[in-house]
Amino acid sequence: MSGIWKHNIGLSIFGESHGESVGITISGLEPGLALDEVFVQSELDRRKPGQSDLTTPRKESDKFEIISGLFEGHTTGAPLTMIIRNTNKKSSDYDHLKDRLRPGHADYTAKEKYKGFTDYRGSGHFSGRITAGLVFAGAVAKSILSKKDIVIGSQILSIHDVYDDLLPSVINESHIKDLQQAFPVINKDKADKMKAKILEAKEDKNSVGGKIRCFAVNMPTGLGDPFFESFESILSGLIFSVPATKALEFGAGVSFASMYGSQSNDDFYYEEGIKTRTNNNGGINGGITNGMPVDITVTIKPTPSIGKNQESVDMKTNQPVNLSVEGRHDPCIVPRVLPVIESVLAITILDLMS
Amino acid sequence: MSGIWKHNIGLSIFGESHGESVGITISGLEPGLALDEVFVQSELDRRKPGQSDLTTPRKESDKFEIISGLFEGHTTGAPLTMIIRNTNKKSSDYDHLKDRLRPGHADYTAKEKYKGFTDYRGSGHFSGRITAGLVFAGAVAKSILSKKDIVIGSQILSIHDVYDDLLPSVINESHIKDLQQAFPVINKDKADKMKAKILEAKEDKNSVGGKIRCFAVNMPTGLGDPFFESFESILSGLIFSVPATKALEFGAGVSFASMYGSQSNDDFYYEEGIKTRTNNNGGINGGITNGMPVDITVTIKPTPSIGKNQESVDMKTNQPVNLSVEGRHDPCIVPRVLPVIESVLAITILDLMS
Amino acid sequence: MSGIWKHNIGLSIFGESHGESVGITISGLEPGLALDEVFVQSELDRRKPGQSDLTTPRKESDKFEIISGLFEGHTTGAPLTMIIRNTNKKSSDYDHLKDRLRPGHADYTAKEKYKGFTDYRGSGHFSGRITAGLVFAGAVAKSILSKKDIVIGSQILSIHDVYDDLLPSVINESHIKDLQQAFPVINKDKADKMKAKILEAKEDKNSVGGKIRCFAVNMPTGLGDPFFESFESILSGLIFSVPATKALEFGAGVSFASMYGSQSNDDFYYEEGIKTRTNNNGGINGGITNGMPVDITVTIKPTPSIGKNQESVDMKTNQPVNLSVEGRHDPCIVPRVLPVIESVLAITILDLMS
Amino acid sequence: MSGIWKHNIGLSIFGESHGESVGITISGLEPGLALDEVFVQSELDRRKPGQSDLTTPRKESDKFEIISGLFEGHTTGAPLTMIIRNTNKKSSDYDHLKDRLRPGHADYTAKEKYKGFTDYRGSGHFSGRITAGLVFAGAVAKSILSKKDIVIGSQILSIHDVYDDLLPSVINESHIKDLQQAFPVINKDKADKMKAKILEAKEDKNSVGGKIRCFAVNMPTGLGDPFFESFESILSGLIFSVPATKALEFGAGVSFASMYGSQSNDDFYYEEGIKTRTNNNGGINGGITNGMPVDITVTIKPTPSIGKNQESVDMKTNQPVNLSVEGRHDPCIVPRVLPVIESVLAITILDLMS
Repeated sequence: MSGIWKHNIGLSIFGESHGESVGITISGLEPGLALDEVFVQSELDRRKPGQSDLTTPRKESDKFEIISGLFEGHTTGAPLTMIIRNTNKKSSDYDHLKDRLRPGHADYTAKEKYKGFTDYRGSGHFSGRITAGLVFAGAVAKSILSKKDIVIGSQILSIHDVYDDLLPSVINESHIKDLQQAFPVINKDKADKMKAKILEAKEDKNSVGGKIRCFAVNMPTGLGDPFFESFESILSGLIFSVPATKALEFGAGVSFASMYGSQSNDDFYYEEGIKTRTNNNGGINGGITNGMPVDITVTIKPTPSIGKNQESVDMKTNQPVNLSVEGRHDPCIVPRVLPVIESVLAITILDLMS
Repeated sequence: MSGIWKHNIGLSIFGESHGESVGITISGLEPGLALDEVFVQSELDRRKPGQSDLTTPRKESDKFEIISGLFEGHTTGAPLTMIIRNTNKKSSDYDHLKDRLRPGHADYTAKEKYKGFTDYRGSGHFSGRITAGLVFAGAVAKSILSKKDIVIGSQILSIHDVYDDLLPSVINESHIKDLQQAFPVINKDKADKMKAKILEAKEDKNSVGGKIRCFAVNMPTGLGDPFFESFESILSGLIFSVPATKALEFGAGVSFASMYGSQSNDDFYYEEGIKTRTNNNGGINGGITNGMPVDITVTIKPTPSIGKNQESVDMKTNQPVNLSVEGRHDPCIVPRVLPVIESVLAITILDLMS
Repeated sequence: MSGIWKHNIGLSIFGESHGESVGITISGLEPGLALDEVFVQSELDRRKPGQSDLTTPRKESDKFEIISGLFEGHTTGAPLTMIIRNTNKKSSDYDHLKDRLRPGHADYTAKEKYKGFTDYRGSGHFSGRITAGLVFAGAVAKSILSKKDIVIGSQILSIHDVYDDLLPSVINESHIKDLQQAFPVINKDKADKMKAKILEAKEDKNSVGGKIRCFAVNMPTGLGDPFFESFESILSGLIFSVPATKALEFGAGVSFASMYGSQSNDDFYYEEGIKTRTNNNGGINGGITNGMPVDITVTIKPTPSIGKNQESVDMKTNQPVNLSVEGRHDPCIVPRVLPVIESVLAITILDLMS
Repeated sequence: MSGIWKHNIGLSIFGESHGESVGITISGLEPGLALDEVFVQSELDRRKPGQSDLTTPRKESDKFEIISGLFEGHTTGAPLTMIIRNTNKKSSDYDHLKDRLRPGHADYTAKEKYKGFTDYRGSGHFSGRITAGLVFAGAVAKSILSKKDIVIGSQILSIHDVYDDLLPSVINESHIKDLQQAFPVINKDKADKMKAKILEAKEDKNSVGGKIRCFAVNMPTGLGDPFFESFESILSGLIFSVPATKALEFGAGVSFASMYGSQSNDDFYYEEGIKTRTNNNGGINGGITNGMPVDITVTIKPTPSIGKNQESVDMKTNQPVNLSVEGRHDPCIVPRVLPVIESVLAITILDLMS
């Protein structure tokens, strides 16, 4: 089963890229939240396609519509359902791909598992477009968390071989403010280089990947448990629900491998509460948040849809075919995945506070 | 809630490091499996302490005892419960730590969340010792999977700055056979250097981390679903249940960030089935296994218990204290975590085939 | 959390009686089912209001619309979402009830739990109207089950003090055929008396309850497990999700209390398989189906909305008020609940076969 | 999967009637509960066999042993595991039943589903003995609830055709006190007649069933949700986990079927809170507790193990056999099921308050 996530709150996503609509039902929300529709739409707009020459020229207005769970502007405690009607469906783009397997995509596994019945147009239910529902849920979660001063932000850490300046181990709210931009990078020069890299790949009918660092500050202690319900376990399950995510690091992440314990341990001190000098552990010890910022890094793979020629197979004949994926694709999906990563972090925190 | 994992099969772990026992109940196993007790014990022995000068000198026999779910040597389909009695409890080692927070450990979060009622001796329920239950479940899962020719193996990829030779992108069964050793490394020279690094850290009252690459070959296609029930989501939830894991990579992992799509896409070809030339995606597309080896890399942090002097706080007084963790600790936990990582991979595969 | 049910398949219901719409998302369905839209609509029509003078005169067309999970007429394996737009919303009927608590309704508990934010119009999310989603899911489940010859039917066993003729302990398919009527009763005279009883209650601004016997024939053995996942446990959770259900009996049900073991035990015999002479246990032993018909009886309470004068309280002032519930209500909900009971039985069987 | 229940708290039961042990792990308990071992043992003793001539002469001491989750007499927040070693295993009693199907038992379904690998001795994992774990969990839950003044009690409502005096619709704490007896019946004469009925059945190598009314007073409002997470849904899933339960009624239960709405509706009044004059709805409206006593009635079938001659089948040969179940059986299981029913009610309340 793919579409339902049920923990303290519940999520049920649905829809297809080129079908009637995409959407989500959120279950278990507190009653009485005044939904800020302008904020929610602005979050959806961060993810929507067609915003600059860095992304696919395919345009979708991504206007959301609430069809249940809202009464007189407030959540009621009943399931909150949002749908977005698909308006831009150039399905013919995909006809020639019906039996051809795009490398790096889910075409082969989907056809195998679902016996040829999947909606193949624009990847159907496998499309990143389904994450619009997660961004909606994330916007709702952020609204609730912001009333408790918990703030979430993120940085494009790298695009291909271009790295932004490294923020310190212990993030604070001012870093998040600095990053509130359409293309959230600290060093403007690096931002320009990243954009150039993306356009260069686009020009070359290729694509590039990158890394996102995402964090939440003003965290409460005590979220999560050891083992199966660790904060990391709950969050990682949602992170890897997001298409194109291939690695997840907490705090110092892969760097832990080459550290000594005397470097990686975060020493404790007291200053209006117990804190740590560094935050190598990313705000979590023993599966439980320790009050320091939650700090993760996510690796996003290059968009698999590229115009370059690739080797593939025709599933009907098992014969080799050459394949170049035409259509309107993102040369780099990192900027559009960023609000999705923020969203699942917000959802995790809200869930574990519920 | 910490101890229960419920998907297609179910796991319920329990116990404390220095309490009466540790154990697990596995629910939803098929009936009729002849339990190979010698193999199960050998898997538990890979994880148990006291096996060489690379690990803690604390000895535990880790002899398992089945108290339900087995009849005339076979599983019955009823819950299978295993316990290991704790025999070596030098609890006095921990008395002086009662109110002192060991950096990098769960002491602070445990005390905060559980209001001072946790069993603090040897980290209590937060101890890595609880993973013995996971290794037991993993051994049972491996036994079932091996009947379907699915084989799981792993490599110590690095200890601190020493890397083993890199295996190819597409792993096969012979690589796994080569790695069936107590210290599974391809290049013997590198193995010696890794061991020297660990002993050097031990000598220095310090500790080191490392990376584990783990894989499963002869995989069926079709395990997992897009989004919340992706193979990656289910597996990552279990990987981050294992104490000391700080990063998880699928296939090329963090390297995806600096690749072009033309490099990272795995081209398809046909040879007794549809296969891919490379396995950058680690055997998974769109959340679903594609029949290529599942291939992950896990970063393990340096053991937080070190004899070196560290800055901490006394939770009773909020006053600064200097703290060095005496006792019998592992200078590097990587070799002992390795069977746990294999186990949760085996459990995930079995679960998604159930 | 109210709206999500997740077992082998998943259900996510949403909507309000007088809001924008009601609907459901079904997750985990097999791909390739050709949806018979005529059958599905006919099932929804069995539940919809306004069909005869026995039910509320409020009319709703209850036309369903699929917004995801269907492609070229077949299920795809992705979440299947159905919505029904509400067309008949006489919300003003409910204005005077805003602070008054209707006896037998959820007004008080809803206001307490959801802090006054519930949509009170027509009971909002507490309305029986939400069960349209369950009937949709039930119709889909019945379609799948019928391909395996599993057939589900039901009988109005009683309305108030009028009982239909008693069917035998072991139901068969011909009984189900006899009951395929708009008002499914074996004895026509009894049907007339039941209808008269309902109209008499309606005339008197009162309401009546009754009992539904529901069954599934050609059942496979082996569905369910002992204890928490017993067939009875899974089914009962869904039965008591249906508003107005107050008792659930399996097989001989409450009659077991006054039987001897020698009467209640179902003797075994062999005839093209192992069968039982009687079916007092309702097709289930030890939580697992035994291949005999699943046979349950559900008690439905009289509709709480009655025109008669009742004693209540104004929640704003805590002062006593007299209250008579005007509006368009069913004098007896039994005939409209019947397809809902059949549906949750079908869903349970499908789920445990999945 | 049979043994795991996971909601807000988690339960994992295991064991066999004549195996090594039976037990339970409870996950998600609050830390700091001082376990009253005398009370817990007294609850287990209410269920254990061999206490009077009304029950099986088979003796089991049912002494419990805590093997994890307790430290210095208090719960730690970690999983709490209890085991009871089986001491009285006359397995030879069951040898002649190995291939013979006892009517009314799970022998047939167990053998079918678990392919002949079940432990058949004393019904193995299908035994009512496994409910000792539920009674343990219930005792823990009662201890926590009693600190919030929530009290649970029960009445043997009937044994075969002998009914106890009817308590009023609205139960109060003094009724519960009156029922704190080994054989909880209001009218002593009726108690004697019930006991005589049981001994008469025993004499005749037969068995009898009965009804249990169970209630909780001083209930909070707001537990449960509409639909899938209704109080009734959660509770019913646990009630039907208990072997031998065949019907569950809430409040007026099956009597609702023959009531008018004007009789069944519970009128509201205000007196130190909003209350109802009657409690036909059993303390629940719209799936949510309303503060009135939760009030249920459970029908228990006659013990299927009877010495009388019955018709059965030999599963090896499919030939008819005559079968009389010798051994040490209860002629009536009602008094021993009673603490189990109380326990699952306590567990449900605790779970929904967690």
